Amino acid sequence: MMLMAHFSPMGVKKVPTRSSVGLILGENVFARLNIPNSVVSAVDGYAVLSESTANASPQRPVVLEKQGYVWVNTGSMVPPPFDSVVMVEDVSRWDDGTVVVYRASPKGQNLRYLGEDVMSNQLLAFEGDQITPQLASLLISAGVLELKAIPKPRILFIPTGEEIVGDDALINGIMKPGDVLESNSILVTGYLERCGYRVDVHSSILSDNVDELRGVLKRAVMDDYHVILISGGSAKGLRDVSAEALKDGLLFRWLLMKPGRPAIGASFDGCPVIVLPGFPSSSLVVLLTVVVPFLNHLSGKPPMTYFESLDIEPWETQLLHRMSSSPGMEEWVKAKVVKMGDQALLWPLGGGSSSLFSLGEADGLACIPSSSVELDKGDKVRFYPLVHLDLARRCLLQGSDDPALQMLAAIAKGKGGEVVVKRTGSMGGVLALARGEAHAATCHILDPDTGIYNDPLIKRLDPHGLWCRTILFYREQGFILARGNPRGVKGIRDLVRDDIRIVNRQPGAGTRILLDHLLEKDGISRDGVKGYNDLCVSHLDAAARVLAGAADVALGVKSAADALGLDFIPIAEEPYELVYHSAYLDHPGIMALMEAALDPKWRSIVDRMGGYRWP
Amino acid sequence: MMLMAHFSPMGVKKVPTRSSVGLILGENVFARLNIPNSVVSAVDGYAVLSESTANASPQRPVVLEKQGYVWVNTGSMVPPPFDSVVMVEDVSRWDDGTVVVYRASPKGQNLRYLGEDVMSNQLLAFEGDQITPQLASLLISAGVLELKAIPKPRILFIPTGEEIVGDDALINGIMKPGDVLESNSILVTGYLERCGYRVDVHSSILSDNVDELRGVLKRAVMDDYHVILISGGSAKGLRDVSAEALKDGLLFRWLLMKPGRPAIGASFDGCPVIVLPGFPSSSLVVLLTVVVPFLNHLSGKPPMTYFESLDIEPWETQLLHRMSSSPGMEEWVKAKVVKMGDQALLWPLGGGSSSLFSLGEADGLACIPSSSVELDKGDKVRFYPLVHLDLARRCLLQGSDDPALQMLAAIAKGKGGEVVVKRTGSMGGVLALARGEAHAATCHILDPDTGIYNDPLIKRLDPHGLWCRTILFYREQGFILARGNPRGVKGIRDLVRDDIRIVNRQPGAGTRILLDHLLEKDGISRDGVKGYNDLCVSHLDAAARVLAGAADVALGVKSAADALGLDFIPIAEEPYELVYHSAYLDHPGIMALMEAALDPKWRSIVDRMGGYRWP
Repeated sequence: MMLMAHFSPMGVKKVPTRSSVGLILGENVFARLNIPNSVVSAVDGYAVLSESTANASPQRPVVLEKQGYVWVNTGSMVPPPFDSVVMVEDVSRWDDGTVVVYRASPKGQNLRYLGEDVMSNQLLAFEGDQITPQLASLLISAGVLELKAIPKPRILFIPTGEEIVGDDALINGIMKPGDVLESNSILVTGYLERCGYRVDVHSSILSDNVDELRGVLKRAVMDDYHVILISGGSAKGLRDVSAEALKDGLLFRWLLMKPGRPAIGASFDGCPVIVLPGFPSSSLVVLLTVVVPFLNHLSGKPPMTYFESLDIEPWETQLLHRMSSSPGMEEWVKAKVVKMGDQALLWPLGGGSSSLFSLGEADGLACIPSSSVELDKGDKVRFYPLVHLDLARRCLLQGSDDPALQMLAAIAKGKGGEVVVKRTGSMGGVLALARGEAHAATCHILDPDTGIYNDPLIKRLDPHGLWCRTILFYREQGFILARGNPRGVKGIRDLVRDDIRIVNRQPGAGTRILLDHLLEKDGISRDGVKGYNDLCVSHLDAAARVLAGAADVALGVKSAADALGLDFIPIAEEPYELVYHSAYLDHPGIMALMEAALDPKWRSIVDRMGGYRWP
Repeated sequence: MMLMAHFSPMGVKKVPTRSSVGLILGENVFARLNIPNSVVSAVDGYAVLSESTANASPQRPVVLEKQGYVWVNTGSMVPPPFDSVVMVEDVSRWDDGTVVVYRASPKGQNLRYLGEDVMSNQLLAFEGDQITPQLASLLISAGVLELKAIPKPRILFIPTGEEIVGDDALINGIMKPGDVLESNSILVTGYLERCGYRVDVHSSILSDNVDELRGVLKRAVMDDYHVILISGGSAKGLRDVSAEALKDGLLFRWLLMKPGRPAIGASFDGCPVIVLPGFPSSSLVVLLTVVVPFLNHLSGKPPMTYFESLDIEPWETQLLHRMSSSPGMEEWVKAKVVKMGDQALLWPLGGGSSSLFSLGEADGLACIPSSSVELDKGDKVRFYPLVHLDLARRCLLQGSDDPALQMLAAIAKGKGGEVVVKRTGSMGGVLALARGEAHAATCHILDPDTGIYNDPLIKRLDPHGLWCRTILFYREQGFILARGNPRGVKGIRDLVRDDIRIVNRQPGAGTRILLDHLLEKDGISRDGVKGYNDLCVSHLDAAARVLAGAADVALGVKSAADALGLDFIPIAEEPYELVYHSAYLDHPGIMALMEAALDPKWRSIVDRMGGYRWP
């Protein structure tokens, strides 16, 4: 990398050994003291003259007067002329202070010699060794209180961006539309700390002003920062000032990776500066794969990535569904994983690199090499965890979305299981279950021919009756409308009106099947419904589109309408089923899920959401 | 464990989200803000009214006047009534401020809706979740500036022991024989910090006084420490006061593990106290396997060991030689590992739990389950690394010891290879090489029949000539004697004198073979030599025994005598060979080793050691 070619590791410095843990030694280190620093006892017992015990036996024990022995603790000096130690277990001590020895104690017994562990002038550690706690402990004990090491770089993080505001803005109620609370500093400090690097965060957030940024950079260099990280201002918008401020010392612009392309590396007054893209996922990926190796390089270590330096081995996982990757560049994809049997399954999370939610829920990052473009279901993918995962407790619930599921998962968590919900629609859920790609599924699928929910399809998919089925609840489906129903929507026929636009759900969603059924029943062509192909994957997403005015009508559950204060016209009540394979009866995740489903706490929360009835 | 049964996880507390990373959430957390908090642009470009671009095409572009658009950065609010954004790439901008749009921009294009990523009141994280940097970042962005979490325990470490002294004692030149510099605090703070726990170290080292210790404990409880760690005073010596000070609240004494047996768990004024044994290895093992799980328990996490909490998976390694383990208890053994082909080989390090040197050089700990007693060579052993290992660069050099080898390894390290020296004697070295258990061997083996060194044996072991051989140097062997040769030793015949005791080397050592040869030549019986069965494994160890007065004579190299300022009577000059298999010609460790052997820097250091001649 250009940065490493341009900046050498930092020079060695004298540092106190007690604060040297994690540093790279800048010299070979030799012991200054012997360990032990005298002949000491290896046990708790009595130091004696070996000659005085020469003929001791259980039959003819030797009695030693007070001046013939001395008590020594483990590690205590054995004072001359004593040359042997009898273990406390092998001696009787009388009240008058004499001790009785039952066995001869040969010269040197239970002694540790001067320098037995470490000899003065012995070579203890090499230049280039990383100082572990145990090495520092050894060096201190050997009298090495100071040593030459490569210090850690002092790092400054500068948040920038017109739209970025501090917590004060929220506390004082002065956040404006478009304002974003500064949060990338938490990613940067959190992850660099895990690698042993401390980061100072600049006290203020810079607006998009080249001169201001230059001023702060100049001060940071004068304040002896060794590395400066700037957040934001690296894309090509009109106000992207970081590139402008750094233009005299640019080392790289744009990286061949995704996300993170718009990163910048530069030298400013001789100090290395890296601009991290403002989007959180981009920022994180550049941090882990570019910044951490550079910091390691400066610290005298091999230029290891975050994962390498923490010995985080990639997992070999299988893709749960096909995906595309950007050709010609390495791509790091937020992902979640579950284990089905012995196989770890992975799926990428949506939301793009601006999404904080998907980053927050990600288990880690999948690395798609630049040579891969189209990946098939079942393809092997390398996955690097970012969090501690206990996959044995985790079950994957695929299928129909409902706003009540999140609280169900929260309560299951308290019962020792983890429920990961993947919204793939009712049909997607039961098909995944049938393929062994989910531990459980939720569904509400209307059979158009019979008008019966769930039963016909499930019986077809599970002919031997190996699945366990429970109706979690009945729920009201209907039209979600802007508050006050300004367009005066009354029923299904209104969906063909010119001034009405709907938002639909993804293919396979039970709600979409219901909509299709309603349209067909009334002889309405899908083509006549504006927005039929505008898709989203959850009831709340659909309701949010209505709230935002992007759609006038969405078919969805009452609780989603209620959550956003929207109007609702009921259309149908549906049985919402939870289905799982009996093989998972004793899976901790499924057990917790079933317990949670019967928990009165969950039911009372769901009751308050509105539109649900218990079986 | 008794401690966990007695002390519940700490109560939840309100903490600023910005300093919550690593904590366990004490509540379900819901978003307070929408993300984005208005309709924002997903790209850099021009916000427009979708209607105004309805018929735009490359042939008939639409020209928008200044009031018909507004520039928006990625993430900026799209001000009403604009309802669509045209990417900067799809537009021409003229100098007069009008922009030309070549493509229709449908309603909603390139917009991110209010709440599209996170909706206000959405459930973002569950009670019991560990707060990662990305979760904290998400929560801050969603307006959650404070949350309820289980705080981290405040931990105090108290070093105790009459013989333990602070750095001042060394600096001021007042260290006495038997004094030991305090260094366990470095292990404790270093390893707990890796798990995310900060530790305060008590300002002074306590002597062995029950009342003083009780006083410090009382003050610590009043100062709101949640956990107190005491170092030392847990064995059964006369002065072991920790048990005495804690006797009213003892929860456990002695653990069924090795090392670490003499650990104590107690409650003092309602505060958990753990006494760590004073020996460094014991202290470390109790820290990693007892203290860390307890701290995790208090912090609301599963009671994971150090290795579990850092996701350090055990390696499956093969024992390099047989070993015994204590029956009936789990044993943690300091160990080193190398890789031969695909197989990681492990051997335990000697020195016992008091040895700082072997802890300092250990790669990690092997865990021998309580069911194992005698382990054979080749048995599988679980190994947990404590340091970052790059085994591809590491070669194992078995064989003859020489004081010059350490500097050779130090210089090889600077050349990108790592050389691990295992002193198994000349014979052990070449046999290991023949068995594929070493990358290289050093040897000086006299063939008694021919008087020729090395050649006869190596030709027998390597009949096809696949080994590469280099004479590293010629070295002087002789008698190492106390300074001034007080016993007046003159030659081999003196070894049978009644007032002379030798120290010998382990079977298979070239030096022992030489001694045997000398004795035989002079017709001296081994039985007549006192100390013939007192063994040590290196020249410096042997010299140290002479220095300590434990032996009067040792056969060894001149450099060892010189290093300790001892007398030396030369006996023979030996060719000291380095041998390695040609399969390792391009092994980074071997390459670095061979480079180092020719490095003038090494040769000049060895010249200064004395007793060497170059080939």
